[in-house]
Order: sequence, then structure tokens, then C-alpha cells
Amino acid sequence: MIQSFTPKRQIIKVKGSEISSVLDHITEEEPLDISISVPSARPKIFNKTISITMRTPGADLELALGFLFTEGIIRNMSQLLNSYPADNKINLELSLEDDVDLSRLNRHFYTSSSCGVCGKASIEALKTFVPSSDKPALIVPRGILKTLPLALRKEQKQFAATGGIHAAALYTTQGQIILLKEDVGRHNALDKLIGASLLDPNISTNDHILLLSGRISFELVHKAAVAGIRCIAAIGAPSTLAIETAEEYDITLVGFLKSDSFNIYNGANNIS
Amino acid sequence: MIQSFTPKRQIIKVKGSEISSVLDHITEEEPLDISISVPSARPKIFNKTISITMRTPGADLELALGFLFTEGIIRNMSQLLNSYPADNKINLELSLEDDVDLSRLNRHFYTSSSCGVCGKASIEALKTFVPSSDKPALIVPRGILKTLPLALRKEQKQFAATGGIHAAALYTTQGQIILLKEDVGRHNALDKLIGASLLDPNISTNDHILLLSGRISFELVHKAAVAGIRCIAAIGAPSTLAIETAEEYDITLVGFLKSDSFNIYNGANNIS
Repeated sequence: MIQSFTPKRQIIKVKGSEISSVLDHITEEEPLDISISVPSARPKIFNKTISITMRTPGADLELALGFLFTEGIIRNMSQLLNSYPADNKINLELSLEDDVDLSRLNRHFYTSSSCGVCGKASIEALKTFVPSSDKPALIVPRGILKTLPLALRKEQKQFAATGGIHAAALYTTQGQIILLKEDVGRHNALDKLIGASLLDPNISTNDHILLLSGRISFELVHKAAVAGIRCIAAIGAPSTLAIETAEEYDITLVGFLKSDSFNIYNGANNIS
Repeated sequence: MIQSFTPKRQIIKVKGSEISSVLDHITEEEPLDISISVPSARPKIFNKTISITMRTPGADLELALGFLFTEGIIRNMSQLLNSYPADNKINLELSLEDDVDLSRLNRHFYTSSSCGVCGKASIEALKTFVPSSDKPALIVPRGILKTLPLALRKEQKQFAATGGIHAAALYTTQGQIILLKEDVGRHNALDKLIGASLLDPNISTNDHILLLSGRISFELVHKAAVAGIRCIAAIGAPSTLAIETAEEYDITLVGFLKSDSFNIYNGANNIS
């Protein structure tokens, strides 16, 4: 019933004045390509990808079935003829009624992001987008990092009101706020922040700390990398793929940020 | 810099043995249709929808720009010729280089869900999917609800390890766990749960409480409605559209669930 495997990574924990290197569990994040085949369709449908989602591996068949069912593509289990799981892929062979309009799927899906080819392959693909920088490393004082959770909470007026909204903010390395955007979706809050920085020629994203109110997914690090951001600090935990992307693009990555402690997942040398 | 408007709703707060009706701020969630026009393209591109995202209204231009930029569609602000915001829609007129392959967008976007036409229109559209029920109301004891956060924490082994993963679980109205699924994505955790219940003929989703570890978006209520779930309890906050969807489908909706308090957003009569 419960997946028991979670990957481990060597990370640096900072608590008060103590610094230690520990092996910590990290939530796994990998793409899943969900495709369907419908042999009874005219013309036959074969291996048609209908969704690529970033998920934690495990229960892939359940994930694909739940997705197809809640999308209204299948109505009951008798429509599942076969399933073919593979590495980060699953194909479901279905018996669909003639009146199921698969073209509806294209309208039906909304994008919450931007994952490129998704997964490890897209960390590579990202390179075409990410600006190369010859700036010196962005050094972030440890004392400033610890002030950010309280600073964010003070600024985050909508969260204060509703308790239900994500934030993305830019702070200087001296702890002054530059920009803050809120949204019900994490990726939207970051898109708003990056869009606002594009609109304001005085804001240079690569000189500041990106502070995120929630967890750090691959997608958020991807967006930050494209915008030239070099330091991400978050109140929540990063995923495996988020850490790998930060490593590839030399982005300092801090998680579980609290007023007296935080974890460093990449770029410890850049924290003074 | 900070959006100051948040909608309010009349909700019921339960704290210890006190029950009060209060006007509370709720995070707004509405769809945004982002489209582009490229007059210099051959053939011209006009009002092509490239994303529909569920977002909190405000900073729509920033959101659209950040999205296009982090997708690699635009590289700088000189490519934005005009923007035309409308109600839950925004169109951006762009000057794109000839070698920008817009067909890439279709590959590029991954679906994190299932929003139908998105927003209020799709609450209506849902009706074709949602099974009608003639079962008597599902009555949930208040005392059982309060035990669920601790019960979930005990069961959620991956969260205990990583602190960074969402859960969706089914509990009986007597507080016994039936199923639990974890994932880095909230919608994936729920898809896995619904898929697992489809695979097990002994599990009837409409007799149990759905417990969610995070916030309640429209998308999650939509999925629950399709699966015939009649009571959703969550550790986090619901959005406006989540509440409206729960109202439409007679789903009891509880948020901010703690061991000594919770809020009821719909179906207070079903909590004993």
C-alpha cells in the first residue's frame, strides 16, 4: 500500500552555528509518459501519448487509470484490455466506445508548465535556453537567509488572509525585498515574478535570491534557470530532479528554510 | 506589488466544542487562457491558445510573459508588440524569429491535469461525468475528522522520510484507513488513489472520506466528483472554485483540518 523506496542524497544541514553533512531522504520526481492504444478504433490508435506528468515513481498503472477515468476517457475497468509498463512510460490498451472523442483530450488538458522533454533528457535540452554567465558567484550570507522566512510572511498579504496561496519573491543578498508575486499555483507565482522582472529593466534576476514559499520541483528550477537565477531558497523540500537541475546549472539550492536552520542541496560554497 | 483583493465566503469554523459562522478570505482560482498572435508568421498566427492555466487573477500580463519566456518562445521584451487582456483571457501579439518552432509547444507542455473547459463553465461540463447518486448522505462524525491528521501522518511513510510529498487517502467514516497513495504532485496522488480503487472491486469511493495532505484546488474536487467521492477533508485551504464545485456536486468540504479544529466550506449538515 505504501511505497517504501525513497532515494538518499548527501546534503549539508545548517542549524544554529552547527554545520553537518548528512545522508537525507529526498522525494523522487521523474516523468511518466502515459500513452494509449485503441485497436478497435478506425483508424487504429497505437501508442498515442496523452499526458506526460512529473510524478513519484510507483503505482504507475493506478496513476494512468485514475487519470483516464477522471478525464472521462474510460468509464469502467472492462475497458482496460492490457497495460504495458516500461521505464518512465506506460501504455494502456483500451476498448473505447465509438463516441469517445479523443480530440477532446487536447482541449481538455491544461498545461501547468513547461517541462521540455521532461526529466533527465530535458535537463540537457534546457542548455539551449539557459543564459551562460561569466559573473562571479553570487555569495549569500547565512545570516540573511535565515531572515527570509519571516520577511516573506510579513510581505505575503494574501497568504495572511487566506492561508492558501503560494509566493515567489526576489530578495537582494542583503535581505531587501525587490518583488513578490502570489498565486494559487507555484509555477504561476514564479511565472508572474519572472514576467514582472522582464517588464522592469531595473531588475536583474541573476543578482538576487529567489525565495519560494513551498516545495521545489524540477519545473520551478527549470524556470529559474531560464531566467538566469543563481540562488533558490525555499520553505519546503526539493525533489531529486530539482537538485540534479540545480547541480547542472550551478544554482545554489537551499530548502527547509527556517529562522534557525536550513538545508543546502547545492552550492554550499556560495553561502558565507 | 501585492494584490490586495481576496474574495470572502461565509464558512463554519469548528474549534474544540465551539461552532461559529464567520466570513473568511478564500484564495481565488480562475482559468486564464493565454493566446498568441504572430502577424509576421507565414501563415499568420492569430489568437492561438497555447495554455490554459488555473491561476489567481492579477498580474496576468506578467504571468503570460514569464510563461512564454521560460518556455523559450520569447527571448526578450522587444518581441512583445502588444497585449490584449480580457476576462480570464490574455492575447499577446509577438514578433518571433522564423526559426521558432511553435509545434514544439505541443510537445513542450505537459498536463498536470484535467480541467475540462476550465473554470465555471466546466463545473457545468462535469455533469456529464459525475455519477448521480441516490444513496443517503454520508454522515461523518466530527470526532473522527479530528483524528485524521495524526492518522495520516502515521501512515505517510514517504513524507516522514522526505518531508516533501503529497498524500491522498481514503478513510472509513469510523476513521479506519482503506488506501493511501503518495506523490510529488497532488493530482498524481489522487489519480493513483482513484486508479487503485478502480482496480479493487471491494473499495467503494463514495462511502469513504477522502483525506488530502495539502490544499484543495478545483482540479482535485473535479477528480473526486468524477470518482463519486462525497466527503473531502484536507489539511490545507480550498480555493474559491474548489468550494463552488463542491457546492454543485453536494460534496462535503472540510479544510484546515487539525486535531482540535477545522473549517467547513460545504455540507455542514453531513458532519455529526
